[in-house]
Amino acid sequence: MITVGIIGYGNLGQHLAAAFEKSDLIEVTQIYSKSATASGKFVNETADVNKADLIIIAVSDNAISEISSQLPFENQLIVHTSGSMPIAALDQKNRRGSFYPLQTFSKNRPVNWNNIPICIEAELDSDLELLQKIASELSSKVYNVNSDQRKALHLAAVFASNFTNHLYGIASKICAEHNLPFEILLPLIAETASKVAQLDPTMAQTGPAIRNDDKTINSHLLALNDENQKHIYELLTKSIQLNGKKL
Amino acid sequence: MITVGIIGYGNLGQHLAAAFEKSDLIEVTQIYSKSATASGKFVNETADVNKADLIIIAVSDNAISEISSQLPFENQLIVHTSGSMPIAALDQKNRRGSFYPLQTFSKNRPVNWNNIPICIEAELDSDLELLQKIASELSSKVYNVNSDQRKALHLAAVFASNFTNHLYGIASKICAEHNLPFEILLPLIAETASKVAQLDPTMAQTGPAIRNDDKTINSHLLALNDENQKHIYELLTKSIQLNGKKL
Repeated sequence: MITVGIIGYGNLGQHLAAAFEKSDLIEVTQIYSKSATASGKFVNETADVNKADLIIIAVSDNAISEISSQLPFENQLIVHTSGSMPIAALDQKNRRGSFYPLQTFSKNRPVNWNNIPICIEAELDSDLELLQKIASELSSKVYNVNSDQRKALHLAAVFASNFTNHLYGIASKICAEHNLPFEILLPLIAETASKVAQLDPTMAQTGPAIRNDDKTINSHLLALNDENQKHIYELLTKSIQLNGKKL
Repeated sequence: MITVGIIGYGNLGQHLAAAFEKSDLIEVTQIYSKSATASGKFVNETADVNKADLIIIAVSDNAISEISSQLPFENQLIVHTSGSMPIAALDQKNRRGSFYPLQTFSKNRPVNWNNIPICIEAELDSDLELLQKIASELSSKVYNVNSDQRKALHLAAVFASNFTNHLYGIASKICAEHNLPFEILLPLIAETASKVAQLDPTMAQTGPAIRNDDKTINSHLLALNDENQKHIYELLTKSIQLNGKKL
């Protein structure tokens, strides 16, 4: 049995604990949460956190360093779950690593762990092996990703997910302004997302920008009342034309 | 049997013809394509196009007006398939309408018509009824959308699909620059797209911008070498913060 302690019981901490529950190989021995009542597996003082085969810190980025330095032990394998922090953010009194599930977690949406890429990193090869074993219990997609790569991946994810969602939001507003239900766009959104699983996004590019269809572009710019939306339209149109279709 | 003639045999024309083939209610009686050999159903002269219950013009936006004026008949129900053109783009000698399937069509990807929203419009109620009947043979999602709404929908689709795909492209480049396979991002892209089927995009917004996480934002901006990508990052971050989370 591999023992795991989880520090932080927010969205990700809860999803991780629930996923490990289902594994015969892994036992969550302790969960730390500042706001929890100390009872059963739960503790609410860092001083009460015990060693385990692995300690996973699933707290917000700016709390990682402080909480890792408060842990009352040394030479313990500790990972954080942040996309943007290097493993150097963890106190060096312990053996450091990263366990980064690349997915957006929402409270009320079920999570299919088997399909979530888990990016792992560790200072020691033996620790990396253990992380590989644990990550493989959750997911079939485990990647070795160093701190620099992880940071780049997090940046790429901001474009592919956070910014993309914001564009959905603008589309939704335009629909609402014209008494159109946003659901009309959902099949298009789904197809656009699933297309890039087979086709390089540059090759999959369609629309007035890549066609250099100035008539439609100008008519769209005229139709946009919101200055901010207009800037986004102009900048992304230029950017598409700049990159072009690499045929 | 409802008879349909198709003008234009590009991506959409081919997908439409194949879909109507499967219907017991609809018969494609003629297909016009400039580059086709005149044989069987195919004609390559507009003068040879015959009347039918419905003529569908599936050509590029800037060819719609000219080809509609070349058709050798009057008082015939004619629709175009363009998202951005009003039905007034069609020659007024015929009864005009629109038949706009809101999806991105690629040559080598199968199309599930039942899931594609079809937006219809016609000048006459009886024509609208026929379009409703025909569209319902292909899809369970048929919407009455007037020319102004259709133009807004097309604009919204540019944000939700064309621009979104471009952001996937930027993410893909960032991955390549750091020797990371783009496939790592695919589950995140899929979840981001499917989330907005249940959750308003504004409520679904996550990431450093909406958290006002200046540390991560600045570190991302420093990591971006490409000036164009930097501009996009800044503008979309500001735009997310401007709209905020409407809690």
